[in-house]
Amino acid sequence: MKESDTIAALATARGKGALAIVRISGSESQRIVRSNILETEKFDKSSNNEIKLYKYIRKSNKKEIIDEVTIIKYNAPYSYTGEEMVEIICHGGEIVVERILESLIQDGIRYAEKGEYTKRAFINGKTDIIKAESTNILINSKSIIQHKSAIDNYFGNYKSKLKNWKEYIENILIENEVIIEFSENEDVEELNENKKIKEIIEKIKKEIKAELKIREKFKEVEQGLDIAIVGPCNAGKSSILNLLLGYERSIVDYEKGTTRNFITEIRNINNINVRLIDTAGIENTEERIEKESIKKTWEIIKKSKIILLITAADEETKKVELELKIDEKKKYFGIINKTDLKNGIEKEKMFKKLSIPYIKTVAIKKSERDKVEKFIINEISDIYKNVDYNSIILNKRQEMLIHKIFNELKELEFRFKNKENEIVTYHCKNILEKFEEYIGKTNNEDMLNKIFNEFCIGK
Amino acid sequence: MKESDTIAALATARGKGALAIVRISGSESQRIVRSNILETEKFDKSSNNEIKLYKYIRKSNKKEIIDEVTIIKYNAPYSYTGEEMVEIICHGGEIVVERILESLIQDGIRYAEKGEYTKRAFINGKTDIIKAESTNILINSKSIIQHKSAIDNYFGNYKSKLKNWKEYIENILIENEVIIEFSENEDVEELNENKKIKEIIEKIKKEIKAELKIREKFKEVEQGLDIAIVGPCNAGKSSILNLLLGYERSIVDYEKGTTRNFITEIRNINNINVRLIDTAGIENTEERIEKESIKKTWEIIKKSKIILLITAADEETKKVELELKIDEKKKYFGIINKTDLKNGIEKEKMFKKLSIPYIKTVAIKKSERDKVEKFIINEISDIYKNVDYNSIILNKRQEMLIHKIFNELKELEFRFKNKENEIVTYHCKNILEKFEEYIGKTNNEDMLNKIFNEFCIGK
Repeated sequence: MKESDTIAALATARGKGALAIVRISGSESQRIVRSNILETEKFDKSSNNEIKLYKYIRKSNKKEIIDEVTIIKYNAPYSYTGEEMVEIICHGGEIVVERILESLIQDGIRYAEKGEYTKRAFINGKTDIIKAESTNILINSKSIIQHKSAIDNYFGNYKSKLKNWKEYIENILIENEVIIEFSENEDVEELNENKKIKEIIEKIKKEIKAELKIREKFKEVEQGLDIAIVGPCNAGKSSILNLLLGYERSIVDYEKGTTRNFITEIRNINNINVRLIDTAGIENTEERIEKESIKKTWEIIKKSKIILLITAADEETKKVELELKIDEKKKYFGIINKTDLKNGIEKEKMFKKLSIPYIKTVAIKKSERDKVEKFIINEISDIYKNVDYNSIILNKRQEMLIHKIFNELKELEFRFKNKENEIVTYHCKNILEKFEEYIGKTNNEDMLNKIFNEFCIGK
Repeated sequence: MKESDTIAALATARGKGALAIVRISGSESQRIVRSNILETEKFDKSSNNEIKLYKYIRKSNKKEIIDEVTIIKYNAPYSYTGEEMVEIICHGGEIVVERILESLIQDGIRYAEKGEYTKRAFINGKTDIIKAESTNILINSKSIIQHKSAIDNYFGNYKSKLKNWKEYIENILIENEVIIEFSENEDVEELNENKKIKEIIEKIKKEIKAELKIREKFKEVEQGLDIAIVGPCNAGKSSILNLLLGYERSIVDYEKGTTRNFITEIRNINNINVRLIDTAGIENTEERIEKESIKKTWEIIKKSKIILLITAADEETKKVELELKIDEKKKYFGIINKTDLKNGIEKEKMFKKLSIPYIKTVAIKKSERDKVEKFIINEISDIYKNVDYNSIILNKRQEMLIHKIFNELKELEFRFKNKENEIVTYHCKNILEKFEEYIGKTNNEDMLNKIFNEFCIGK
């Protein structure tokens, strides 16, 4: 895999669509694409960034036409990768895309690896590492909150904070040097600089700590909200889950205790990732295997911050149902299911007594889906409100580095208190290096490969 | 749904990708997109078909940036639809696409319906109906054979044949008029024209018949090759199926007779659609339900042209296995499974005796997949060889019309033989009208809606 190879890949999502984009980058891209179109003169005359219509052909097969496409030429360095590039916008059929790529491969272009376009863009100075990583998160984000932070970092939101932190460290470094210099001559115990450094360390520690805290909250957003779906056997927990997911996933059956596994599904409800956790019915039982799963359900209830209680209108209120609200701090809401069988007034009384908001539904009816979804959206909508989730730390790599910097700061603080000023200098330089690593100023090929390997093909 | 509305949709496939295209068409498209980007001056200055970089914003939210995009402006009528258009190439994240579409909808653009872009292109004379339909097939084609016919018709391959047929009918019409004219004065029994018309009718009937025959073969290609997977109980039929499909689909179990349903799956093997038909094990049994399914298996064997026999190396050759080759014209090939348990020499002898090509495998090993697939490709590869599948009839609508034309021709022939020349004229005019309908020269709004409703959204 040479970096000078010309590479090609589908840049749009796989599958059927009206259009698709095939991206080609490298010094051979225009020559090879030119040899695969009928209108070569038009191609030669077209200027950079100009979109034109061509017949894409398969040379090897008597100039058989494969598709009518539009093509954009980009001359180096005025392209995404900084190399010579071509973008082919073709019809979005799988066979069409396959045959175009096939023709390019036959002419000596190779398939791009994961993130190879962005890697080249980085090497050619067209993007920095944070921007590249932000693009990746932009593509993969599943909620508006993620998207906002990604786009902010894409446009360099992190820079001002990072600049401040670097300046803090540089100041410590300077002040510390003064101390070292003076200490050769006199007692530095009472030097002003001493107090100043202390203040700076406090400040940067506080700021980084705050940022790491935002990151923690942000990770919750990334993971999604956990909603435990809890209730007695046969209340219809799986039916509710299937209704929300839109297909038959867990086994819905009329035999008691069908759901023994705690299957987790992610669903985007109103731009928030929601993990729905199915639980086994809570009821007293003698069977060993049932006991085991009830124990597990209780563990889930204890862990979950949001609990959706399902109860059946046609069954008596069980003692255990009245005991499900174990913590006022948790968010509870309820669904009275199977109201086609009985009116459910008894269950309404139960929820009112427990001060739990509820709706009534017949979960096996697909038409009830909107109603149930709206209810859930309404109940969870205020959870992420009024919180500034704009995180500048957007992935594991960044998080680990900031953690390392924070730990090194604590070490620095300790050494400073011990008056080991030479070691303070050492740590300052270490931290500054880590800041450089943070923005990708590194020659570590392995690290770069690791970063770009998380990207999709075509990016 | 007004035709003057400005419409928007994702034009590339749904899902994650490096890039995505949002297409906007209608008189408001440039004004609205312009109001959602930061660099309005750049937008105004950019010429048609020129691709430029912009920051896409959300006006309503303090000009929050949503994405960095490239935009192409198209002025009417120089666009796909013939209307004013804009194409936004954005990052291929679901949230990004969603938010861009959302912003457009908020500004009064509405979501495009299925095939609405192409419908507008048709109304504005930018495409004919056959080209439009061909594009749809181009996108949906699952094999190179389909793709070739689609692209040929896209570029008007059908036109010369259709022109010939129309000319034949016009000639019949003219000659028939002569007969009608003359018949008022004299006996036309022996007129030259009589023979000529007969010849033309024969010719066009023959040509249309040939085309309908190609269409029949082509439908086979569209449907895919049916391969029946047959063998005794526990030979590993479901394992082979799962190996080829790459995931656990049918229940693979060690209890005899697990597979009772005849599940059909489609898989693209070497650009040919292959339907793999799982069957219940063939073995003499007393159980009623098993008997039923064995009967069904035999029905499938009788119907299928290609039969893959699976046998287990560690089991004795059953009498029924030696009876499976019921027809020399069918294509048979075999797999000796479970060779990890026994060498399978006995089964090799069986296949050799029956002159059936075979391989030996251990189907529960995923690593055997390539070997099995190659074997199948090799065995089925000659089935579609040496056949010209280039069909000009590409969908049901076209097929039905050609059938109608053919039937009307037969009626015409009958009337002509009966010397009912006035009625011959009537049928000629009818057929010519149907040819017009074939290429979409119709004002029938219902028919148009029906055609475009088969398209995907964004097309």
